[in-house]
Amino acid sequence: MTDPIDNNASAAQPINTRPSRRDVLKLGSIAALGALLGGGALLGRATPALAEAASTGTLSPSESFDIVIAVYPNGTLLDFAGPSEVFHWLPNTNIRYASLEGGPVTLEYGVVYGKTERLADIAKADLIMVPGGSDLTAPMQPAYQAQIRRLADGARYVTSVCNGSLVLAATGILKGKRSACHWAFINDLKEYGAIPVPERFVEDDNGRFMSGGGITAGIDFALRVAAKLRGQQVAEFAQLLIEYDPAPPFHSGHPRDARPEIVAMVEKELPGASKGLARIPGIR
Amino acid sequence: MTDPIDNNASAAQPINTRPSRRDVLKLGSIAALGALLGGGALLGRATPALAEAASTGTLSPSESFDIVIAVYPNGTLLDFAGPSEVFHWLPNTNIRYASLEGGPVTLEYGVVYGKTERLADIAKADLIMVPGGSDLTAPMQPAYQAQIRRLADGARYVTSVCNGSLVLAATGILKGKRSACHWAFINDLKEYGAIPVPERFVEDDNGRFMSGGGITAGIDFALRVAAKLRGQQVAEFAQLLIEYDPAPPFHSGHPRDARPEIVAMVEKELPGASKGLARIPGIR
Repeated sequence: MTDPIDNNASAAQPINTRPSRRDVLKLGSIAALGALLGGGALLGRATPALAEAASTGTLSPSESFDIVIAVYPNGTLLDFAGPSEVFHWLPNTNIRYASLEGGPVTLEYGVVYGKTERLADIAKADLIMVPGGSDLTAPMQPAYQAQIRRLADGARYVTSVCNGSLVLAATGILKGKRSACHWAFINDLKEYGAIPVPERFVEDDNGRFMSGGGITAGIDFALRVAAKLRGQQVAEFAQLLIEYDPAPPFHSGHPRDARPEIVAMVEKELPGASKGLARIPGIR
Repeated sequence: MTDPIDNNASAAQPINTRPSRRDVLKLGSIAALGALLGGGALLGRATPALAEAASTGTLSPSESFDIVIAVYPNGTLLDFAGPSEVFHWLPNTNIRYASLEGGPVTLEYGVVYGKTERLADIAKADLIMVPGGSDLTAPMQPAYQAQIRRLADGARYVTSVCNGSLVLAATGILKGKRSACHWAFINDLKEYGAIPVPERFVEDDNGRFMSGGGITAGIDFALRVAAKLRGQQVAEFAQLLIEYDPAPPFHSGHPRDARPEIVAMVEKELPGASKGLARIPGIR
């Protein structure tokens, strides 16, 4: 393997050792094609090499697969920005972003996301993913819950990141199912009959239900989903491209590791968090 | 510290051990206030506990601080979705999203982001951050480069994630400066006189220049920036809230670890990558 950080490599390579612009433009064209499609259906970057590698996944490599990411007002951008970055590399896989009303959605912090499709306009999802948020009022409304339950019932895979599992659980579909959640909210799952499992990735029913822990856990979650759907090689390829070689500067990513004073700060911000029972608007 | 995953915790807690809805709604209100502000300036979630903890950063805790995230067509969402999730927790810190034209910006894969402000409407940034993209044609245009150079010259901190460092470097401001970049593009920095450093986080000139490696490195980068600006306690608090306790399922996040056949797959997709010399549209 060539050293990617070879400091002796000349900046001025002979032109024929450089990729042609056409090669790299092809990538851009595929993304652009996605953008041209109506609604929110966005193509990934399927290439022959990827499609071949995908032969070890549970799906047939040539099988087209629709992932629907259900967003809502006050949702958390990073909960789905991590997974979507991974999913966009899967061959023959469309990523659709949808919300109750369609169009742009105002997430947490006033961040505006989308165009999104209307959930009601989506007949079927092969995989539905529900991200979390800092205020679950919108996705806990009956109209939203009905759409999520309809798509989940018809989907091969029912998934969530962060406290998106509470949104799924509230539809009743997680009754008796093991599920992950952000650590601060994980025991709230019990209110809906789901079984909280304090891990970064959790599956039940042979992977029909898959869930990630809080916010950044969405990246680990997505790599596992990618491996299941399209094989480990494709997942490793995506991991290499997103340079997911994490090196947190502090040891503070979970309350079992964080300093007690830091956990206390979060408890002040989100009372109940240290028992996994933080409440947010929208939870009954 | 209380076990956050106490499986014996009753779902039906006495009401007085639960946080009040008012407490948690306060958080939502701060976010909502951000959304109500004109332009793209979004408030973080400063609270008294956070402001107090911030006293160990290089900034005075009461000092208001403007972070400008410069986005552009075909930019990579995760490059700035990671950092912004961390930055939004910093006390007295405004996050402004800006682009050349302002308004919504179509990123990679057709993802639509923003409202954004117009770069020309921003008089000054305390910190400018340039994310990367799969096509740098837009940010390499003279009008964009001029805005970036103007804001960088006036900023206390000049930063980038992924191959956003190539955009900064092309303005000339990184001449002789050490900088990180996505591994596939890192040696392209030399074309602009910058010094490629193959690490996940790199600083130069006592931190005036800070940069992150590829895509997901933005999270590690942002935690280090947070610690510098507002102190380690605030950074650890953010890390705990975003549950950044990474557990990649595979060992494939950097070419030094990935299997040779996976590196070869990327080389096919991005010729030159294994030498750190991948080319993308926009690079001269």
